[in-house]
Order: sequence, then structure tokens, then C-alpha cells
Amino acid sequence: MKQFLTVKDAGDVPTLVQEALTIKQNIGEYSDLGRGKTLGLLFLNPSLRTRMSSQRAAYNLGMNVMVLNLDKDSWQIEFEDGAVMNSTKSEHIREAAGVISQYCDIVGLRSFPGLVDRDKDYTEQVLHSFQKYCSRPLISLESGTRHPLQSFADMITIAETKKRAKPRVVLTWAPHIKALPQAVPNSFAEWAITSGAEVVIAQPRGYELAPEFCRGAEVSYDQDAALAGADYVYVKNWSSYEDYGAMPSVEGDWLLTPQKMKATNNAKIMHCLPVRRNVELIDELIDGPDSLIQVQAGHRVTAAQAVLKKMLETI
Amino acid sequence: MKQFLTVKDAGDVPTLVQEALTIKQNIGEYSDLGRGKTLGLLFLNPSLRTRMSSQRAAYNLGMNVMVLNLDKDSWQIEFEDGAVMNSTKSEHIREAAGVISQYCDIVGLRSFPGLVDRDKDYTEQVLHSFQKYCSRPLISLESGTRHPLQSFADMITIAETKKRAKPRVVLTWAPHIKALPQAVPNSFAEWAITSGAEVVIAQPRGYELAPEFCRGAEVSYDQDAALAGADYVYVKNWSSYEDYGAMPSVEGDWLLTPQKMKATNNAKIMHCLPVRRNVELIDELIDGPDSLIQVQAGHRVTAAQAVLKKMLETI
Amino acid sequence: MKQFLTVKDAGDVPTLVQEALTIKQNIGEYSDLGRGKTLGLLFLNPSLRTRMSSQRAAYNLGMNVMVLNLDKDSWQIEFEDGAVMNSTKSEHIREAAGVISQYCDIVGLRSFPGLVDRDKDYTEQVLHSFQKYCSRPLISLESGTRHPLQSFADMITIAETKKRAKPRVVLTWAPHIKALPQAVPNSFAEWAITSGAEVVIAQPRGYELAPEFCRGAEVSYDQDAALAGADYVYVKNWSSYEDYGAMPSVEGDWLLTPQKMKATNNAKIMHCLPVRRNVELIDELIDGPDSLIQVQAGHRVTAAQAVLKKMLETI
Repeated sequence: MKQFLTVKDAGDVPTLVQEALTIKQNIGEYSDLGRGKTLGLLFLNPSLRTRMSSQRAAYNLGMNVMVLNLDKDSWQIEFEDGAVMNSTKSEHIREAAGVISQYCDIVGLRSFPGLVDRDKDYTEQVLHSFQKYCSRPLISLESGTRHPLQSFADMITIAETKKRAKPRVVLTWAPHIKALPQAVPNSFAEWAITSGAEVVIAQPRGYELAPEFCRGAEVSYDQDAALAGADYVYVKNWSSYEDYGAMPSVEGDWLLTPQKMKATNNAKIMHCLPVRRNVELIDELIDGPDSLIQVQAGHRVTAAQAVLKKMLETI
Repeated sequence: MKQFLTVKDAGDVPTLVQEALTIKQNIGEYSDLGRGKTLGLLFLNPSLRTRMSSQRAAYNLGMNVMVLNLDKDSWQIEFEDGAVMNSTKSEHIREAAGVISQYCDIVGLRSFPGLVDRDKDYTEQVLHSFQKYCSRPLISLESGTRHPLQSFADMITIAETKKRAKPRVVLTWAPHIKALPQAVPNSFAEWAITSGAEVVIAQPRGYELAPEFCRGAEVSYDQDAALAGADYVYVKNWSSYEDYGAMPSVEGDWLLTPQKMKATNNAKIMHCLPVRRNVELIDELIDGPDSLIQVQAGHRVTAAQAVLKKMLETI
Repeated sequence: MKQFLTVKDAGDVPTLVQEALTIKQNIGEYSDLGRGKTLGLLFLNPSLRTRMSSQRAAYNLGMNVMVLNLDKDSWQIEFEDGAVMNSTKSEHIREAAGVISQYCDIVGLRSFPGLVDRDKDYTEQVLHSFQKYCSRPLISLESGTRHPLQSFADMITIAETKKRAKPRVVLTWAPHIKALPQAVPNSFAEWAITSGAEVVIAQPRGYELAPEFCRGAEVSYDQDAALAGADYVYVKNWSSYEDYGAMPSVEGDWLLTPQKMKATNNAKIMHCLPVRRNVELIDELIDGPDSLIQVQAGHRVTAAQAVLKKMLETI
């Protein structure tokens, strides 16, 4: 595996998910595979799960890890090709990527979208400009449009718990107090569709995801109808793609309730975390018996370890 | 050992101190005990000694370490149960603790008191809400009311240097320019009392520690009288417990001097660091031949290693 | 090797450079030399290359690493002896250095000059006050006046590529938008002179380096004349030493161009990074076939590994 940026890099998803579940059974089995190799984890934004699960996964494989809060610990980065660097940015991504490539065997990069310039975010300027000058296998630790390690962990979670071959998976928009990226829902949709689930995306008007992530999914504006018969309910807020980064006013109440859950097929509840309790999702559902939220988070190590193992086998 | 939050978790203190002194003789003896295990160190506040000594102790035992400045590198944390999370805090301690438990084998947490709400600090809201949702052995890296790794290191230092079985140990308040927590004096008192020392706490009126930490100690408002015959003088500032977090005006001069030291039994001088030179304690005493201050700091590795070893043996 | 602060600590430079080139051939050859040993990397300023390359070098030797952003993760540090510490600085360098010495086997420290008080910077107050109380081998990760790991990497780069025994090496001043330290040019000059190169330092009037770094070099105010016949052109901005930290106005155009390069002996272009593209050096030259800039950065691991190896052999 040369890169892990989208579901396309996963190869056959069900196969990779099965490999991950095998790794989960014995996390120490390949503890010498990464000996002498170093993983570099670069953050342009905050991280808890991604940071710690990726480190742990690397340790499980015997790797060393270097974590860098790129903008805070190092220099501010310029991403524009041809820039005259007379601003506060004192290092170009071209140098940073080239240098880090020489110090690490595998690199992970997190960069949130700005939610201002859709083209910049959706062309993945930061991720792609880094990759262009990076000579090592690159892992997205969440980028402008996708969060593949999260989605892979979600697929592992569904594969481990599903009761029918083609579960009905409902990704439902939830309220929030600030504008969030579309990366998690985009990514979840493309992974779930590729995994062969029956995917329904339920959201208020104005919150439609970019079309390329929804192909093969049913799109609904009726949360109740979407939930009917659901096996999994993935709760997530996101801001508008159409009116980019905005939070258009919403009709109706999109907060999930135990009452609404009754229409499901005893569905499991999922969320990628962090979750704003009692804003996006109520305590009762987060902490209830149908919640898979902590299980998903645990699978972040499994997912990262499966990806790192694949990469280590090719370098 | 399942937790290390107070002296009660130490079992028999003299025995644990002896085990630590044995570890000090050969810090590399158990260098495989922690192989494949990961220590997570979480900081909500600054740290030098605790951060580095805990890391070093873990390395001595062959563990991997992940250090997280929780609020800065990750998300701001909500600690209130039932909170409607519509503020700047985007992750609840419940999720954070649950997730980190899955990524680490042992967890350390530092959280200073706010010095505003005594109930919140003295019920250890942060530490206990973390522990409630943490499924791993938990080490306090200093909490609202205690700093057990420091106190353990202090006991190792006294045990290694004492000239009589029941030394007279005087904890004496020192001047400072800002309000400091009571965690170090509280903790030192309970460890020294439990260790069987003759403990005297000398402080100005208004600076009495919480009664539960002083049981078994003599409390004095007369520094000179307290120092008479002392074997150890532990110098430390703290703010008021009664008028919580305040710095009531002080009568007399509480700054330790070589002259005052003459009344002691050639006492050794201790301080937990960091020390504000020539405010809390003068250069001459910090750097003099009776200072154990650097020795205490060195024993921070020993103490952390003894605790980690005990925990590793039970997981 | 007991310290690595200036070229004087390198012993015979050509010999050390050859040892480094040997290490580069097999970076894993001494992967057990540092087993059980810990490197502490302390930063008072931002760092990318130094931080990551030193870590990687330590990992290659089997060491553990602790990285501390000293002022941000820990306490603000007082450097003045005898200070009454009633400011915002709560820890004295004396304690910090003593403590860190006990936790680490080798220590690296980065501290940029303030560019305000020349005496303070040029007597290396920070580095030397740390060293005074540090009992371990100390590595400068760039100090007030020097950047020896960078210069060592530069010498490795020249040794590996040079076409004649005594190459003509031109260090040429470049434009910038802010006042930069003299550490890199100072250090490069002393290393290149010691290595036996023909060293020319070209700069505008007012930008002369401190005389002690230029002994043995030709100093020129005529960039074109300096470049004539050059084998290496080392591009770097620095502020004034005379009018300390100022940026006196400059006559003529000091930005290097392909046209100017024609006077050289097909010279290679060097820069220590970070580089402000199209301010200090144009894209065409940074990315052109004569650029050694990424090679220099790669040699930072080699240089750090050679230094750490020498130190590990003596402790």
C-alpha cells in the first residue's frame, strides 16, 4: 500500500476489514515488522483519537514515532506554488515534505478544511501539495474532504457486529453549534457504499453532501422514513456543501431520540467523536446499550495498524 | 496496584520505599517488563519533572509512551455530567477517558486545582471523572489536592538519608508572589505521617491545611519553635484553604535563613521544585551542602518506576 | 565526545565527516549502542529539521527520546544568576538543567538569540548557563551564535560532492523581510574554514559577521567577484552584527540569479532551510539541478547520528 487517502486505496474493502479483524485478535503478532522504521505524524489541527491510536498502532508494530504539531512546534507553512514568501509563513510545503520524507519511513498528515474556499478544500490543496513532494507512503489523518482511518474503523465495527449481509446503514445529520467539515460523512458514505451496505443519507435541505460521495446511496430529507428498518444509525453534523461552510436554517427536529429509534431494526448507534453531548446526541443514547461509539474508537488502533502493516510490507 | 492517587494506594509505605531503593540500584533490571505496553501521560497543566521522570521510568521498564497536552493538542474537555455542550468544550471527559483507556495500558493525568471552587477541587472532580470512565490503572501526576509521585520521591529521599528511625520533619510555609495549590503540602504531610516520621507543619495563621491531611502532625504558628531539632525542613508555599485560594497577609518573616537553620539538628533542606529563588528560598540554602533538592528530583524517576512496575505486574 | 557546541568539539573535522559518511551507508549498524539510554531534546524555539533529524538519529542508535518545548510545556525559565524570581519566570535554569541531567543521558538544547543584547547572545548566556548545571553531554541544537549540527551536515554534503580537494565555497548574504540570527553563517564559516575550503563571505556593508568567525576567510562586498569560480554557493540571510540585530539598508541586488551563477564553476547551491521562496532564493534555483538543499537536510540525520554515536561511546 503506497497511500491511504481514500477508500480507493483500501483495495477490496471487505478483505482489508477481515485482515484488520485478524490483527485485532493478536495486536502483538507483528511487533518486529516495523523495527528500525519511523512513523511521522504531522498535525495542522487538534487530534486525540487519531494521534494516540496511530501512535499505538505503530508501537504495536515495533515502529518509532515522531509527532509534530506542524504549525506550533515548527514553522508556519506556505502551500501555494510560486508564492513570494513575504508573509508570516517561513517554510514552504515543498521543503517540509521533502525533508520529512527523508526523516520518516511513513508519514501521516492531518489538515482540516478552511470551510471558506470550497475549491481549495475539495481539491485537497494541503494534502496533495504535501504528497507531491513526499517520497514516502502517506496516510491521511483527516483531510479537507475525507477521514479514511475513521471510516475504516467504522467498517470494522459494522463488519464485527452486523446481523445481515447487507445492513441498512443510515447516516443522519445532527444539530451542532458550529460549522463542521464534511470529511467524516463524505468518507463514511464512500466506505459504506463500497462495503456493500444499503446506505441512506438523511439530512435537511441545504445540507446535501457533494454528489461524488453519495453515488449508490439513497438521499432522504425525512429522518423518520430513513430510520425505518435501519441496522446502524451514524449520527454526525456537517455544514453545507452547496452554500459552502454555512449552516442554513433547518426545519424540524433532527436530534435523535429513543422514540425515533423505535422505527429502526434495533439499530446500533455510531458516532466518530468528539461528540457534543446533548447537542448532537443525548446522553441516554451515547451511553445506552445500543451505542457502538467506544467500540468504533477502539477500532481506530486496529484500522491504523492494518494500514501501517500493509505499508511496511511494501517498503 | 490498580491506582496511585493517594498514600492509601501505596500499601505499606516503608516497604514500597525499600522496593524503590532497590530499583534505584539497577534501573535497567526490569527493562522487559513493560515490553509491548504503552503509558499515556495526559497534561492539563505545565510539567517538567513529572513529564520527563515518568517517561524515563517507563522507558527503563521497556514501555512505550504517549504524551498528550490534553487541552492544547486535542479538544477542550467538559467535566460536568449531563452538560449541554454548547460552549467551547467539544469533548466530554467520559469519551476522552474511555478512548484513552483503549489506547493505553496505564494512564497518568495531571490536573491542577482552579483555586476558586474548593468543593470542586477537593472532591477531585477532574481526576475522579476521568477515573470513573477509565478502565486502566491510573496514576495521579498531581491533582487538585495531592501530588503522590512527588511525596513518594520525598519519602525515598528521607529513607535514604535519615539518621534516626523517627526523624523530625518540618514542613514550613514559605513566601511566594502568587497563590499556589495545597497539593504538595497536603500530600507530603500524609505520606510523612504514614511513614512514621514526627511531622510538624509550620505556617502563618490563615494558612492551615485541610484537617484531614494534618491528623497525626503537630501544627505550629511559630517557625522557630518548629525548626528546633528538625532533621528535615521541607520548604513550600501554599495558599489558604480556609479562605480558599487567597493569600492572607502574613505576620513575621517566614523566609528560611541560615540563622534559623542553626536551631535544627543539622537539618537537610527539601523542596519539590520549581522554586522561585530568593523569593521562596535563598540561593545559599538551595545550593548549600544541606540541600537535598536535586536528590528529590532524581528520585522522581525512582518513584515513578516503582509505581509503574507494580502496575505492570498486575495487568 | 563530551559536548558538541562549536567546531572545536568536532576534533578533526575531515575525520568526523568521513565517519559520518560511513554511518550514512548503514544507518542501522549501531542500533543497539544506545539501548537503555535516553536523549532529551529541549526547545526554546521552533524547530522542524533539528527536532525530527535528532530524534531519527537517536532512534537509529536504539535510544529513547523525550522532546520538551521547554517554555510552553513546562515553566518559564530564569537565566540570571542571583535573580530574585518575582516575575513570570518560575523555574531557574540551574534547577532545570540539574533535573534534566538526571533524567537524560544526553541533552540537546535550542535557544535562539534575542538579537537585542549582543553581549548576552554572544556570551551564549542560555547555552552556557544550562551547561554549567548540566552533568551530561550537551549538544547545541542551535544557540545564540552557532548551529553546529547544521554546519556539520553542510560539511558532509560538501565532502560527498566536491570535485577538488580545496573547493571555493562562497557564503553569500541574501535578502529577507525580517532580522535573522548570525548563527548559521557564523557556524558555516568556522566549519568550512576548519575543513580546509577556500571560504569567501560576500555581504553588503553593515552586515559583516563577528571577526572571530571570519579568520581565514576572504570577505567581499562584491557578490559577482565572490561568485567567480565558486564551487559552492551557500545562500543565507543574516542581520547586522555591528548594529546588532538591525537590517541596514542595502545597495545593489543581492538576490541570486541564474545569470549570476554563470560566473561560478558550475557551483552547487546550498541553504540551511527554512527558505522563504522568491524572497531569499528563487524557485528556479531551489528546485534546479544544482541545488543541494534537500541533500543537506537529509544529512542532518547523519550528522546527529555521528555526534550521538561519539557521545554514547564515552558514557
